[in-house]
Amino acid sequence: MFKKTLLAVSLAATSLISTSAYAIENVDLLIKNATVLTMDQDKTVFDNGLVAVKGNKIYAVTDGKDINEYKAIKTIDADGDIVMPGLINSHTHASMTVFRSMADDVPDRLHRYIFPLEKKLVSRDMVRIGAQLGNVEMLKGGVTTYADMYYFEDEVAKTVDQIGMRAILGETIIQFPVASAKTPEDGIKYTLNFIEQYKDHPRITPAFAPHGPYTNSTETLQTIAKLSLKHDVPVMMHLAESDREREVIAERSGGLSPIKYMESIGALNSNFLAAHVIDANDEDIAILKKHDVGVAHNMSANIKSAKGVAPALKMFNDGLRIGLGTDGPMSGNTLSTIDEFNQVAKVHKLVNKDRAAMPPINVIEMATIGAARALHMEDKIGSLEVGKLADIIVIDTKAPNMIPVYNPYSALVYSAYATNVKHSVVDGKLLMEDRNILTVNEKAVRDEALKFADIVRKTVIESGEIVQ
Amino acid sequence: MFKKTLLAVSLAATSLISTSAYAIENVDLLIKNATVLTMDQDKTVFDNGLVAVKGNKIYAVTDGKDINEYKAIKTIDADGDIVMPGLINSHTHASMTVFRSMADDVPDRLHRYIFPLEKKLVSRDMVRIGAQLGNVEMLKGGVTTYADMYYFEDEVAKTVDQIGMRAILGETIIQFPVASAKTPEDGIKYTLNFIEQYKDHPRITPAFAPHGPYTNSTETLQTIAKLSLKHDVPVMMHLAESDREREVIAERSGGLSPIKYMESIGALNSNFLAAHVIDANDEDIAILKKHDVGVAHNMSANIKSAKGVAPALKMFNDGLRIGLGTDGPMSGNTLSTIDEFNQVAKVHKLVNKDRAAMPPINVIEMATIGAARALHMEDKIGSLEVGKLADIIVIDTKAPNMIPVYNPYSALVYSAYATNVKHSVVDGKLLMEDRNILTVNEKAVRDEALKFADIVRKTVIESGEIVQ
Repeated sequence: MFKKTLLAVSLAATSLISTSAYAIENVDLLIKNATVLTMDQDKTVFDNGLVAVKGNKIYAVTDGKDINEYKAIKTIDADGDIVMPGLINSHTHASMTVFRSMADDVPDRLHRYIFPLEKKLVSRDMVRIGAQLGNVEMLKGGVTTYADMYYFEDEVAKTVDQIGMRAILGETIIQFPVASAKTPEDGIKYTLNFIEQYKDHPRITPAFAPHGPYTNSTETLQTIAKLSLKHDVPVMMHLAESDREREVIAERSGGLSPIKYMESIGALNSNFLAAHVIDANDEDIAILKKHDVGVAHNMSANIKSAKGVAPALKMFNDGLRIGLGTDGPMSGNTLSTIDEFNQVAKVHKLVNKDRAAMPPINVIEMATIGAARALHMEDKIGSLEVGKLADIIVIDTKAPNMIPVYNPYSALVYSAYATNVKHSVVDGKLLMEDRNILTVNEKAVRDEALKFADIVRKTVIESGEIVQ
Repeated sequence: MFKKTLLAVSLAATSLISTSAYAIENVDLLIKNATVLTMDQDKTVFDNGLVAVKGNKIYAVTDGKDINEYKAIKTIDADGDIVMPGLINSHTHASMTVFRSMADDVPDRLHRYIFPLEKKLVSRDMVRIGAQLGNVEMLKGGVTTYADMYYFEDEVAKTVDQIGMRAILGETIIQFPVASAKTPEDGIKYTLNFIEQYKDHPRITPAFAPHGPYTNSTETLQTIAKLSLKHDVPVMMHLAESDREREVIAERSGGLSPIKYMESIGALNSNFLAAHVIDANDEDIAILKKHDVGVAHNMSANIKSAKGVAPALKMFNDGLRIGLGTDGPMSGNTLSTIDEFNQVAKVHKLVNKDRAAMPPINVIEMATIGAARALHMEDKIGSLEVGKLADIIVIDTKAPNMIPVYNPYSALVYSAYATNVKHSVVDGKLLMEDRNILTVNEKAVRDEALKFADIVRKTVIESGEIVQ
């Protein structure tokens, strides 16, 4: 079943020295004896392969026969485990970890609970503490890159910088006063400052994140679209997510769908990432494709809120840029993309009444190179190919739930837990080894989060404001 | 939100000495400083409670204020972690772990792949090796009792006896020749021997397991029903699961539904456990209730096979005996009931278009006391109550995915991984401590399974018989 192709090492590398059969290459990291899922164009799999890393880039991905040609500073023997591109979580609100497990199943939750809760509790501290916990959770779950929308994203940026992950961080802009901005104009200014501060960071991409079309004015959305093109930064937004959104936008636009409305005001382009896209017909999907928009598919959160199942199968088959996201931890409720895998594979089978629909290989595509495409970063991340940034994870295949592996995609999608991730490499640097995070103190992160949870408990639960 | 009630220690205990405020009670195991989810009638929760065990029974469950009244041979400080009844997996085929991740998404899989695969590979060795791995996976995932249907269940019984878990083990009876029996009559004889052998085992309940109504004759089903009443053992069967089943039974019975047919032949009674029950209307559900039948709800497997969503919400609300099951590892594909939690909570919300449907507390009920009811064992297991058998698990609430816990049911259902289970007690005996299984050698179990997987690979995959 699995093609064995030797990648030409020199192929994608302009600045790299190509290897020969006789020279010894000095590399920084070598992962050997691996079941390598490259997620390249041909979905090449090496059963006993290797991945070599030099600096922050992938230097070689091979069938392992050339193992003696590399001399590495650090070698990891995968012992048959799965080695694959780091997972990309294309939509989240990491800082909301500190609110997780609160009032999960109440109707109209966003407007009745979450917005008031945030008004009371969002602060620089909350954002930092929540993001730290979210980062730890994601890194331990195999996420190496995430796309975040929240407030005080410069605080999130500091935590991402510290732990060593990769992120696209979008400052939320919304029509009512929030902790980081009194008005949408203030929010735009805040974002421009943030962009200025982080535009040259090697792992962090600053972005605009208007909350949604119905929670921002047409003028705000148009201003953001223009500024995003001027500064060449992404725009991330919740789109086609809810009935309320459809109603508000239909009233505003004379009956347009949210996606048609966004097109009509000139706010869709190839810098755009739309989260959710549940409420989209074939015409809407064609519009997203036409404007090269990326889509974040958040199955777990969408079905938990009973909003429905996004037409992700069609979007995937139509060749849209689509990746998996977890949504925030008040929605999903976990942040590791692995937790989405089996739900994505199974629920599309259920709603399409077809057990062959959405096979595991497509789910893994949406978690890696598909999500990279959604973020318009497929030239840099999302697959194990020579010259790409070295974001790599190793999955333990000896945990009881993972035995045996007749098909690695099936094993990952139907059996793997986030806790089966063993090692994580981001930008060429080993950030987690044998499930120990090497860059931040996990216990300190946890203790700070638990302390903040006590404040939350006193402020909104014991006061009776949030009824569980 | 959480009631704090001191359970009267002497209440359910006839043979137990009741405690007084001043005496010191010697107990075998004490779990203290716990968030105790009792799953009793009132769903009592103790925020800082304790559970005391004497012999194989629960001796006390309290709010912890009486902590100084117990002297224990072994004390576990839960440090705020969740302590709850051991999970009950009400439907599985544990031995099939050795086939996991094979040909997952092919149409008509049972008849085209699984039956031929089993014909070739089922043996006493296969059953033992697969069950050993399944046991380890389940115990590590918090399952303390499971209901199994397969061949050579006496081999499964030996593994259950060894690891120390609790199980209801049903020998499969089917109309074509299988490894353990040439005919259904042979299968019945095999089961009677098995019953004789295990009828007095403290943790193992032998049972009949006719495969399904459409894969057995009316006569076989009637014989089994009579024998099960005579020997007072359970009957477990796949029921109302597939279109093929409906067609075959309709033809056989002049248009009856599978459930109506089973009633018409006198094969439903309070010894019966029906697995799946997807294809059931209100009338069918009423029949199951009338005959006091238990139901195993296997969400994950049912949606993966695109068979549909069982009307579990209605069955639960109508007061049927209903619990969660995982189905076998070629279906689900994991065996830990925790993996079902979020799918059960979310998919019922989705199909009922109601985010308040199937709240976490009901999911936890179906995983514990509900599943005990489905197995007609609610007087013995399923809740932490004085006098019940001591099957107890401790869930780590300090893993990053579990922080914070504002609502323990929500945290369990929407956030917990099987790997968050820390300790497991079955029949009063500590079987897993800090995720180390104390009764079997996990590595040896794994190695034997991997070795058998190589045989599977050579026999059916490399020969091209199974196309992935």
